Amino acid sequence: MKNTIGNNFSITLFGESHGKAIGAVLDGVPSGIAVDEAFIARQMEKRKGINSISTPRREVDTVKILSGVFEGRTTGTPICFMVENTDIKSKDYSLTKDLARPGHADYTAEKRYGGFQDYRGGGHFSGRLTAPLVAAGALALSMLREKGIEIATHISSCGEIKDREFGNLAEDIRQLENLSFPVLSEKAGKEILSYIEKAKKEGDSVGGTLTTVVTGMPAGVGEPWFDSVESMLSHGLFSIPGVKGVEFGKGFGFAEMMGSDANDEFTVVDGEIVTVTNNNGGINGGITNGMPIEFTVAVKPTPSIYKKQNTVNFKTAQSAELEINGRHDPAIIHRARVVVDSVTAIILCDLLITRFGTQFFGK
Amino acid sequence: MKNTIGNNFSITLFGESHGKAIGAVLDGVPSGIAVDEAFIARQMEKRKGINSISTPRREVDTVKILSGVFEGRTTGTPICFMVENTDIKSKDYSLTKDLARPGHADYTAEKRYGGFQDYRGGGHFSGRLTAPLVAAGALALSMLREKGIEIATHISSCGEIKDREFGNLAEDIRQLENLSFPVLSEKAGKEILSYIEKAKKEGDSVGGTLTTVVTGMPAGVGEPWFDSVESMLSHGLFSIPGVKGVEFGKGFGFAEMMGSDANDEFTVVDGEIVTVTNNNGGINGGITNGMPIEFTVAVKPTPSIYKKQNTVNFKTAQSAELEINGRHDPAIIHRARVVVDSVTAIILCDLLITRFGTQFFGK
Amino acid sequence: MKNTIGNNFSITLFGESHGKAIGAVLDGVPSGIAVDEAFIARQMEKRKGINSISTPRREVDTVKILSGVFEGRTTGTPICFMVENTDIKSKDYSLTKDLARPGHADYTAEKRYGGFQDYRGGGHFSGRLTAPLVAAGALALSMLREKGIEIATHISSCGEIKDREFGNLAEDIRQLENLSFPVLSEKAGKEILSYIEKAKKEGDSVGGTLTTVVTGMPAGVGEPWFDSVESMLSHGLFSIPGVKGVEFGKGFGFAEMMGSDANDEFTVVDGEIVTVTNNNGGINGGITNGMPIEFTVAVKPTPSIYKKQNTVNFKTAQSAELEINGRHDPAIIHRARVVVDSVTAIILCDLLITRFGTQFFGK
Amino acid sequence: MKNTIGNNFSITLFGESHGKAIGAVLDGVPSGIAVDEAFIARQMEKRKGINSISTPRREVDTVKILSGVFEGRTTGTPICFMVENTDIKSKDYSLTKDLARPGHADYTAEKRYGGFQDYRGGGHFSGRLTAPLVAAGALALSMLREKGIEIATHISSCGEIKDREFGNLAEDIRQLENLSFPVLSEKAGKEILSYIEKAKKEGDSVGGTLTTVVTGMPAGVGEPWFDSVESMLSHGLFSIPGVKGVEFGKGFGFAEMMGSDANDEFTVVDGEIVTVTNNNGGINGGITNGMPIEFTVAVKPTPSIYKKQNTVNFKTAQSAELEINGRHDPAIIHRARVVVDSVTAIILCDLLITRFGTQFFGK
Repeated sequence: MKNTIGNNFSITLFGESHGKAIGAVLDGVPSGIAVDEAFIARQMEKRKGINSISTPRREVDTVKILSGVFEGRTTGTPICFMVENTDIKSKDYSLTKDLARPGHADYTAEKRYGGFQDYRGGGHFSGRLTAPLVAAGALALSMLREKGIEIATHISSCGEIKDREFGNLAEDIRQLENLSFPVLSEKAGKEILSYIEKAKKEGDSVGGTLTTVVTGMPAGVGEPWFDSVESMLSHGLFSIPGVKGVEFGKGFGFAEMMGSDANDEFTVVDGEIVTVTNNNGGINGGITNGMPIEFTVAVKPTPSIYKKQNTVNFKTAQSAELEINGRHDPAIIHRARVVVDSVTAIILCDLLITRFGTQFFGK
Repeated sequence: MKNTIGNNFSITLFGESHGKAIGAVLDGVPSGIAVDEAFIARQMEKRKGINSISTPRREVDTVKILSGVFEGRTTGTPICFMVENTDIKSKDYSLTKDLARPGHADYTAEKRYGGFQDYRGGGHFSGRLTAPLVAAGALALSMLREKGIEIATHISSCGEIKDREFGNLAEDIRQLENLSFPVLSEKAGKEILSYIEKAKKEGDSVGGTLTTVVTGMPAGVGEPWFDSVESMLSHGLFSIPGVKGVEFGKGFGFAEMMGSDANDEFTVVDGEIVTVTNNNGGINGGITNGMPIEFTVAVKPTPSIYKKQNTVNFKTAQSAELEINGRHDPAIIHRARVVVDSVTAIILCDLLITRFGTQFFGK
Repeated sequence: MKNTIGNNFSITLFGESHGKAIGAVLDGVPSGIAVDEAFIARQMEKRKGINSISTPRREVDTVKILSGVFEGRTTGTPICFMVENTDIKSKDYSLTKDLARPGHADYTAEKRYGGFQDYRGGGHFSGRLTAPLVAAGALALSMLREKGIEIATHISSCGEIKDREFGNLAEDIRQLENLSFPVLSEKAGKEILSYIEKAKKEGDSVGGTLTTVVTGMPAGVGEPWFDSVESMLSHGLFSIPGVKGVEFGKGFGFAEMMGSDANDEFTVVDGEIVTVTNNNGGINGGITNGMPIEFTVAVKPTPSIYKKQNTVNFKTAQSAELEINGRHDPAIIHRARVVVDSVTAIILCDLLITRFGTQFFGK
Repeated sequence: MKNTIGNNFSITLFGESHGKAIGAVLDGVPSGIAVDEAFIARQMEKRKGINSISTPRREVDTVKILSGVFEGRTTGTPICFMVENTDIKSKDYSLTKDLARPGHADYTAEKRYGGFQDYRGGGHFSGRLTAPLVAAGALALSMLREKGIEIATHISSCGEIKDREFGNLAEDIRQLENLSFPVLSEKAGKEILSYIEKAKKEGDSVGGTLTTVVTGMPAGVGEPWFDSVESMLSHGLFSIPGVKGVEFGKGFGFAEMMGSDANDEFTVVDGEIVTVTNNNGGINGGITNGMPIEFTVAVKPTPSIYKKQNTVNFKTAQSAELEINGRHDPAIIHRARVVVDSVTAIILCDLLITRFGTQFFGK
């Protein structure tokens, strides 16, 4: 429903890029969960990206927890994460506010909100709203980790450069945890970075794909209709600005496979039922099968580029030229990674509580 | 929520493949909509596929409308579409009911429902449940068409064979309307058909992709968080059995593009604001921009194949061999197409009513 | 949401009084629950009322379970309860269909559905829709009983006649279980029956109150905002045709009490924390405290009376006189009782699953 | 769902009495609505009660609007109303935190949140959370007023004293708008005030009833199942701390009426269809009929009294005596009145948008 996602564990986002504050209300959190503010801060830091290719707002993005936490633990009532907007540039929007930036939501905001939207800095559409989402996601990630469920995401491709695929999951997850530019192969990482820097010099931007793995998920979570794990995750993932594709397991690769190759045969290892391959990305019939959940999202190139673009003034319906200034990222994939992890964690907490009750998290 | 999807226009599915009946309750339908039973029947027919490569149940699949329609028009109250299961084979499941068919939901059903699931013919997971979904979708399609909104889907690829891309949308939509094997290029169609028939001979199956276009959608529909048009559509689409990937516009192709190519510049044609390209598939910031909505779904190969497969008995956790018999399709993409259209129509009706009220449909 | 109630255990109603069938889809039922069809039939029988003062439709009201039950137990998938309309009188409505019956929903249906509603026999508003609600409620009642939670309702007042209050709850519940005219005092029961028969003779109708008790509810169920136990129960109860008031514990009696009398002091009995009094009806701050839940609903007199009434033709907006014929009950309180039990059971199952997961019911 | 109410126009509450801040997120507000901050402040003032019988926290309760408003008008995105807790007494709770205050939610909070709740000042259960609810309600009230829909509530009874009933609605609404102690009869008001002051002197508290009228509601709003106007309003009203009964129109009075008296006959006045009486409180079959909506809520006596009470320590399950100190109100009915108006306004905005779309409010 609009700015809320989740059935039994839900998040509501509020705020505009240049308003007083942005925030998130996380509801349905079991009581008694330890809140690790240092981990929240680390996740916020990851979201900021790295210096050479990111031009984040210089503001500190301190997360204030207004409610729902008492003596370091969750109370079971809604947790409001607030981030005040302190580094607001008093830029003059009068010349550009009616020009639709290509690839952005200016025009669609005008059609949706009838001219009353806060147009400054993307308003409610701003990627900045992912800040409280990441803060809330950090809590969800902690909850899952406590139950042995880990989530990690790497840049699987950018342009034509491909990172290596996941191998030893435990090691790869540990490695990604400590990287601000999340790649598995150092060499691929350097190439991707150069590719982004090149785009930056040209005033252009790049897209890419992010691949996520979730280990430790119990089997039997999700629904055949309509809340399949794929449905629930994609609902959240497609809300992340810039995400235009989501595939699970072999995803689009299935189109060229035969059933005899695509099917994951079952076998027994150490008394546990597992599949030999994991083409289905840990999900059969919408329900987890106990294998790692694997999915990839496609992120489009950042629409803010410095090149001159043709557009229209949507108030006058006349053609116009537009040159975007200000701070913009030539790539957001490395920053989007922590948003993907956060959204994934929130959705999985919802699915687990729906399936097993809050007791799953031990309370 | 579980077996229901939609906020203001919703559908609830019930039934098992070998139970008394399967059905759908469609709620939130505006009153006064003409119900075209012939169109519903045509859509049901399309869902059955074509003879040479489909082995549908021979039953008639007559749709009974139990409620919500009076004197040929919707009353505004819930419409129950029921399809009785008349052609149930009294097959003996005793030897195979505990063997997890690879790629199927037998094992996950066991973990989800604790051994109480109706295992006959896939039970509640059966593609058969798409029958009432298609019946309900036919009504949604009629509603949209009445407002100038058209939906059409073709097999964009199967194996390595690719259909041509959409060209003249109005003509292509008209063409697909009348095809039971939905392709745009006759030549590609023949190749795909041969490819499927070959798989059938080998006791194997194939996957593919389906590409959908929606014309006539007004701008300004959808939400930035979390009910973006992509989020809402993907939630529905990933519930369709076999769908493992969804991408909008250029989708995964964005990963290799630069922002300067990816951005859709705006221009004015005949006083209307449009984009020059439509890489974003008609959606910016989660909201429709008035251009055609375009998306592609990946459908995995039908998991039922006739080749011998290794698996486990999930009651005993012991290895087993499995040979599947009975009627099975070597491909479902051509049949899934009408399900994609139906789900799309239902989700769009929900989004339109949420945005504009039931008045949008004139009542 | 419209014709659905419940978050994790939900029911969707469909159907019209004179349509093909009416029904309910119950979703979120844990798998493995034994379905006691004889108990369902007994509840359906109670709903029919007693001969001397009820004129139920003569049809058998056989409940068909179309889905979600396999080998006598729930599968965990949606259960569709269907009741076919077999005793439909082919009455001619042409003279009265545009006359708003006072106290009925004819006029509001016209305003809500714009003239497309099925006006025959009250259509979707008919008390007849409580039939599948009672069938579904029977399953919920069984689930609760299995966990030691019992629900019983008696006619606490009718006109100025009052039944005695609940005393020994276990005994009273047992007594009510076996009565088709649910009163605790035989004497009061006779007086109420005479009162109703008198009204019947005069072509008039009566209202009354129903008081319900729920024993065995664990403490800690419900939410402070906004899903208090009172909020959730009242949402369901006010959907029952004719219910115009709901109060918990002392309810409206609180208005004349002082805090020192109203507060329920806590004490310890056999190591258990209980309250000395139960003025709050088992609920503090919206959450169960382990004491019996107690509430009373007010039911208005059946609006169908045989006396001539003034009204309007809502198509022409002109005055008219109306004399209602056909079969009508001079009282529905004794029949509404089983509907109250059913709705209460459904809401409590939802609250319990939301709080404790489906494991509460042992699966 | 938990701390959220509303389908298309919803509010989410967060915060604890002694935490950093309390707040509300209002979502689904149409864009372009003028935000009258002076009116919000007036409503907040009414919520504080009057000096002689209220001991409100001395804090200013300034409402900060963090989001969703731009240049004085709503943007259509979520509005976060925040009230910082500035006047928090650093009282020592160590002696009383495990003693269940009779009539309060301390014990049920312990059972619900497992000992992790913020016990200070009632925590999340505190009546203090009605502050942001009233701020959000003020915006809803403005929206309704703009469309000719007015809401007013008076103290209809307190102890055995009764205020006069509503007469000329337009005049009575105007009168109540300007009163901080909302009664229609000055004489009754004085008696009620004396009655409350007497209770205060005795360290006791009183309950009462509040009667609300809504004028200007269009006919045709609400649903037969399960979102009747009564269901939706009662769901919200029963979330208000202290509310234990809700009745519509004659409510519990119906129990003693005959159908021939209870039915509201229809007639035509100035071409408009109206009812001669309004026993049903403006609602037939769950749907508005265009007559004023009328309902009464029962408010129990404030549970905080100064008299010594018996209770238990819920950690040790041992008996204890309790004497409550600090600031407490001998009555909350006059303060609850503005909360009733606020909740009513929020629910009606939701019902109207669900029925007519956001266009109803002109955007």
